[in-house]
Amino acid sequence: MIQSVAFIGLGAMGYRMAAHLPQHFDTVMVWNRNFAKAEQHAAEYATHAVSLEAAAQADIIFSCLPTSADVEQLIQTLDIKKGAIWVDCTSGVPDSAKKLAQDLAEKDVTFLDAPVSGQTIGAENGTLTVMVGGDIKAFEKALPAMQAFGGLIKHVGESGAGFAVKAVNNMLMAVNLCAVAEGFTTLKAHGVDLTEALDCINASSGKSMVTETVLPQRILNRSFPLTFALPLLAKDSGIAVDLAREAKLSTPVLSIAQNMIQAASALSDKESDFSSAVKMYESWSKITLE
Amino acid sequence: MIQSVAFIGLGAMGYRMAAHLPQHFDTVMVWNRNFAKAEQHAAEYATHAVSLEAAAQADIIFSCLPTSADVEQLIQTLDIKKGAIWVDCTSGVPDSAKKLAQDLAEKDVTFLDAPVSGQTIGAENGTLTVMVGGDIKAFEKALPAMQAFGGLIKHVGESGAGFAVKAVNNMLMAVNLCAVAEGFTTLKAHGVDLTEALDCINASSGKSMVTETVLPQRILNRSFPLTFALPLLAKDSGIAVDLAREAKLSTPVLSIAQNMIQAASALSDKESDFSSAVKMYESWSKITLE
Amino acid sequence: MIQSVAFIGLGAMGYRMAAHLPQHFDTVMVWNRNFAKAEQHAAEYATHAVSLEAAAQADIIFSCLPTSADVEQLIQTLDIKKGAIWVDCTSGVPDSAKKLAQDLAEKDVTFLDAPVSGQTIGAENGTLTVMVGGDIKAFEKALPAMQAFGGLIKHVGESGAGFAVKAVNNMLMAVNLCAVAEGFTTLKAHGVDLTEALDCINASSGKSMVTETVLPQRILNRSFPLTFALPLLAKDSGIAVDLAREAKLSTPVLSIAQNMIQAASALSDKESDFSSAVKMYESWSKITLE
Amino acid sequence: MIQSVAFIGLGAMGYRMAAHLPQHFDTVMVWNRNFAKAEQHAAEYATHAVSLEAAAQADIIFSCLPTSADVEQLIQTLDIKKGAIWVDCTSGVPDSAKKLAQDLAEKDVTFLDAPVSGQTIGAENGTLTVMVGGDIKAFEKALPAMQAFGGLIKHVGESGAGFAVKAVNNMLMAVNLCAVAEGFTTLKAHGVDLTEALDCINASSGKSMVTETVLPQRILNRSFPLTFALPLLAKDSGIAVDLAREAKLSTPVLSIAQNMIQAASALSDKESDFSSAVKMYESWSKITLE
Repeated sequence: MIQSVAFIGLGAMGYRMAAHLPQHFDTVMVWNRNFAKAEQHAAEYATHAVSLEAAAQADIIFSCLPTSADVEQLIQTLDIKKGAIWVDCTSGVPDSAKKLAQDLAEKDVTFLDAPVSGQTIGAENGTLTVMVGGDIKAFEKALPAMQAFGGLIKHVGESGAGFAVKAVNNMLMAVNLCAVAEGFTTLKAHGVDLTEALDCINASSGKSMVTETVLPQRILNRSFPLTFALPLLAKDSGIAVDLAREAKLSTPVLSIAQNMIQAASALSDKESDFSSAVKMYESWSKITLE
Repeated sequence: MIQSVAFIGLGAMGYRMAAHLPQHFDTVMVWNRNFAKAEQHAAEYATHAVSLEAAAQADIIFSCLPTSADVEQLIQTLDIKKGAIWVDCTSGVPDSAKKLAQDLAEKDVTFLDAPVSGQTIGAENGTLTVMVGGDIKAFEKALPAMQAFGGLIKHVGESGAGFAVKAVNNMLMAVNLCAVAEGFTTLKAHGVDLTEALDCINASSGKSMVTETVLPQRILNRSFPLTFALPLLAKDSGIAVDLAREAKLSTPVLSIAQNMIQAASALSDKESDFSSAVKMYESWSKITLE
Repeated sequence: MIQSVAFIGLGAMGYRMAAHLPQHFDTVMVWNRNFAKAEQHAAEYATHAVSLEAAAQADIIFSCLPTSADVEQLIQTLDIKKGAIWVDCTSGVPDSAKKLAQDLAEKDVTFLDAPVSGQTIGAENGTLTVMVGGDIKAFEKALPAMQAFGGLIKHVGESGAGFAVKAVNNMLMAVNLCAVAEGFTTLKAHGVDLTEALDCINASSGKSMVTETVLPQRILNRSFPLTFALPLLAKDSGIAVDLAREAKLSTPVLSIAQNMIQAASALSDKESDFSSAVKMYESWSKITLE
Repeated sequence: MIQSVAFIGLGAMGYRMAAHLPQHFDTVMVWNRNFAKAEQHAAEYATHAVSLEAAAQADIIFSCLPTSADVEQLIQTLDIKKGAIWVDCTSGVPDSAKKLAQDLAEKDVTFLDAPVSGQTIGAENGTLTVMVGGDIKAFEKALPAMQAFGGLIKHVGESGAGFAVKAVNNMLMAVNLCAVAEGFTTLKAHGVDLTEALDCINASSGKSMVTETVLPQRILNRSFPLTFALPLLAKDSGIAVDLAREAKLSTPVLSIAQNMIQAASALSDKESDFSSAVKMYESWSKITLE
């Protein structure tokens, strides 16, 4: 029985994810580096803003930080409750998950890599997809806690598998982002009506999440709302190609898309939405996707 | 008012498309190089198997052939009825459409490029997507005839625009086919459960028509049913990158995917389904996507 | 016996190439769109500045223009001497050479595609490499005229073969330009001394014309002297990948390099030296190759 | 003053490199896993076949093993003489060099990464290029020993810099190998005479070590002599792209070439010469480069 849960990292995702926990658990602790955020959360959702040390004594400890390096650094400093399950929702590095799982196992703590997808809207509605790697029994034990914010929750393999699936998912999205930018620029160069073309493609085999939502809702309307920063997509794409390299696989399409996202990220402001990667293509073609 | 329609080219798509016409028009003529096919169609759907010359006297003449070269060759030999509209449903080359439109205009015939997507099942159900380039008035006049087999029917621009949209659609699909092969091979190399991973991705931003239907229904079950041949996908992808080249655009992701599909096609039997492109990746990685 | 020669197109290359002809032939005619250039040449090298019509009456007519389209346009307007050999030193399109060879053959004129390499210094010294496609007898007949400015002169195949070799040569150079930019940026990012590294590579298997001359003489010293414009390299690379496409070949490395050169060209001033393609990479990495 | 030198790893390169040492030093120790090789070397060149422990007591200890992992494993087990310099001629991983340099420094041993290029013929003639990373004073002290087998010997930066230069050199060669395979296949598809074309390119801007030696001496004559195995080129190319990834650089041309070499290596016998990478392209094009 889960008596207490903690949530570490109240960013755009974490803040919304942690908001669902009080409906399911009596004791919900929250912590954030900028502690005012934690206090605001406590005030808003009746959670408890506590010290990091206190959070580490929960039965289930969630973390949602920018990178695996942040998680590693934080865990190093902590004395975690024996028997606890650490559920890391960061979009992290599979090798880091393997290492943390091994290190924490020696201290009788189980580490699950459990990245989420579904963006802030999914976090708000509690319908996130959660892809989990690590010990299956710990997965089953932590499942009720993950259900607070998750819709589809899947155990996809051993430690690192969750991070791997997230990285490949985002890589596939990055591929589509590049391909759609390239393809629609080509169509516009040939005088095609992009709105009508998009309707056709969304009813055909070329459709993807990018054609269905990213292109019409972020790019063609020139809004580029910041919900997922381009450097983070560059990071995730990099994790995916590193996985391929590690396994000595040839992944030419993924590699090129990763290179393009990396270049677009280098050319952009850090606070650019991932969708603004198309602006690099626009600078090449002098064609605006609108 | 459309008095008569003709359908030239009764392949897997054309045969099914032409089958809907008798419900809407009194006179429906059909022709096929292998004429027994036309006679079979006439027997089955109460169409009229006629000579090519007779078909060319219809008000609306549909064609659905393997390539633009086939259409050009056929049209050269014909004396088409003045005032007729030729609706070419081939997945063709935009430049060929422009040329045919110009040539036929001199003979008072309008040429529309009107490729379709939706595969044989869409042809059977009369729910194909039709992307049409060419004269807008001819489009409106031919619309009732296209509605016989079309669901979504869009005028996307001037001559060639229909072919361009189809080529880019198929190119986007080809990109996803390569990226999914690369990404899922990578996941399997790292011990991830592919079925669970696929469920997660299909609920996330990496989803595409390829993850939703091609991967589960053709690849993971190792069925590779021939409904759209790999060399045709190579042809269509080639048309898309040629369009980019013509406009002097940089399309690195499209280019690489086209190169991979071309290589996979060269290594395959001509009668291989497009989905079997993954086998080239499997030969590299020694990993089977199942 | 060659009685008279003409040279059409006195650009940076043509001006220097034509300067060698008077040493070998009594009658040397020159023509240039900006005719003052022709008159200057006549004054400087004792050639004859003549009308285009007069030039077309020479036994051997050289042309050296920006593109095949320019050559086609010019030839269309001309009445060329029967039995003449037209030697086109433009870096042109193989298909155009085939067409011109066929068209001119009907008028009893032989067309040779004879692009040159060696830059302005080679033109000045009369040591250009000439790669010739077309009729072998015409090649042998025109050889003495080509020897005026050529060092290595090779018959490489039928019409178009000369242009094909030139395009592939320049494509290989473009590949090296990109690869060297990428590789040396990587080395600098890791704190390697570029000058020492270059010495090592130029004594090793990674060396190329780009490492031996372009990198030290144009890039590392930040001179980027305009001797061969980047848009022309983009054009030549495009011809090479078009040749691959035409033959349905997979050329992933050439395709990507062509895409990068195209992008770099789009981002640059038209009057940029080809070596300034590295600046696109520098804008991505914030690392200057110096 | 160097009193004694040792050489660990008598493979195709090491055996020949160590053969030069007795001309310059009184005490030359050699060791090899297959110890018979060491004894053979001792008999042939008057070196001393000794135990690994004894070799670790030399003033200068050379190693030349397949990978950095092999070097790390071996060094872990050893008690190396204080004040000694370990000169590692393996084509290794920069990060491994940094780690070994740091670890050994604590034991008062200096580690230099000093990979060589020039193949077996260069080893035999004592004309290898040596690219050295690490402490400059140790470099100067070890220089006389490296001069025994080296022609051009350069200090290129801190620890890891030598390995980085070697990786990038081999990556550039790999790029040319792919590009030449692609380019010459294209020329042959268009009926160009490859021998004449090669002569032209070797006198032009497209030339590289691959066009000058690899293509004529290994590929066109179909000899593919095993002097440098394809999997090792795949390894080195991988090191280069990993360096780029680490620095978050975009290197599309290097990435694609690495992917192609990786695929070609996966399709080949482990004992294939690097030049046989072209066979993958030949299987795609059905064109043999001969």
